[in-house]
Amino acid sequence: MPSSSRLTPHPSRIRILGIDPGLRATGYGVIDQDGQKLSYVASGVVRTQDGELPARIKILFAGLQEIIETFKPEACAVEKVFVNVNPQSTLLLGQARGAALAALAHADQSVYEYTALQVKQAVVGNGHADKQQVMHMVMRLLKLPGEPSPDAADALACAICHAHGGQGLGGLVTAARRRRAGRML
Amino acid sequence: MPSSSRLTPHPSRIRILGIDPGLRATGYGVIDQDGQKLSYVASGVVRTQDGELPARIKILFAGLQEIIETFKPEACAVEKVFVNVNPQSTLLLGQARGAALAALAHADQSVYEYTALQVKQAVVGNGHADKQQVMHMVMRLLKLPGEPSPDAADALACAICHAHGGQGLGGLVTAARRRRAGRML
Repeated sequence: MPSSSRLTPHPSRIRILGIDPGLRATGYGVIDQDGQKLSYVASGVVRTQDGELPARIKILFAGLQEIIETFKPEACAVEKVFVNVNPQSTLLLGQARGAALAALAHADQSVYEYTALQVKQAVVGNGHADKQQVMHMVMRLLKLPGEPSPDAADALACAICHAHGGQGLGGLVTAARRRRAGRML
Repeated sequence: MPSSSRLTPHPSRIRILGIDPGLRATGYGVIDQDGQKLSYVASGVVRTQDGELPARIKILFAGLQEIIETFKPEACAVEKVFVNVNPQSTLLLGQARGAALAALAHADQSVYEYTALQVKQAVVGNGHADKQQVMHMVMRLLKLPGEPSPDAADALACAICHAHGGQGLGGLVTAARRRRAGRML
């Protein structure tokens, strides 16, 4: 038998980059998955100040490029964003998310998308968990000594969701619940 | 006197790339400006089919990258997009525009943004001109032998707007008119 690690019973380590997109703050979180074992690698936030949109998009794109080059993930999990009550905010958030997806596409990354509900379901076991519960489980699952920033925690949660196979409620239930709350993707 | 063309009374030729962003169809138009003289270089549409968003963003980003590499513009004019009555459409359009801005940022392009009102004002002399009037003026100003596709025509109009110094109504009037029509950027 060839000794290639591809043939070992446990899957090889997979590095996952989670992203929680936003124009002002895009959170990122990098974890390694080795079978059931998850380990924390890095996390942080790419921030942009008020100013012209093209300049902010440039910072966001370059920041994510640097993160990909530094950590060389094998899969990327990006949180799906909600429409805001303010259409202008929705448009700005959309543009930030588009720039993030472009950075991943440019780096030939495999991209997976998860709703906030799927992320919470996978991390906490409850699609309607609050921020504090998500933070608690992220810290516990990754054995973090302290709280990451909220944006970074959401990104780490998204990466954990992917590691757990994106288990959440089914797509149909997800869509129905979200519609009931008056929100659409 | 040195003979450098930089010192001639007329400004050097500037190549302008106009972009009309959309997820399904992103129009582009390339023109050369030499003083008052405008000449057509190229135009077309980057299209994406229905499917997963990350794959569509990748096509859009790569398509614009290729256009920039081929035509090497010195300035880019991107049309500002309107929010749609459907929030989901707004979010998708925003993501397409974000990917387009990311492609320009990645290529270190100077990016200028114009509203549809500014573009129509600069090209037709009337911010409320219809599509057919814009098409007519684009063909006339660039001496085109035939009609470009509507998306390409809008992109060429945006490039012409930039060549004309982005002359339009003032920002405040623009915002007020658009708000009156129940639309926001």
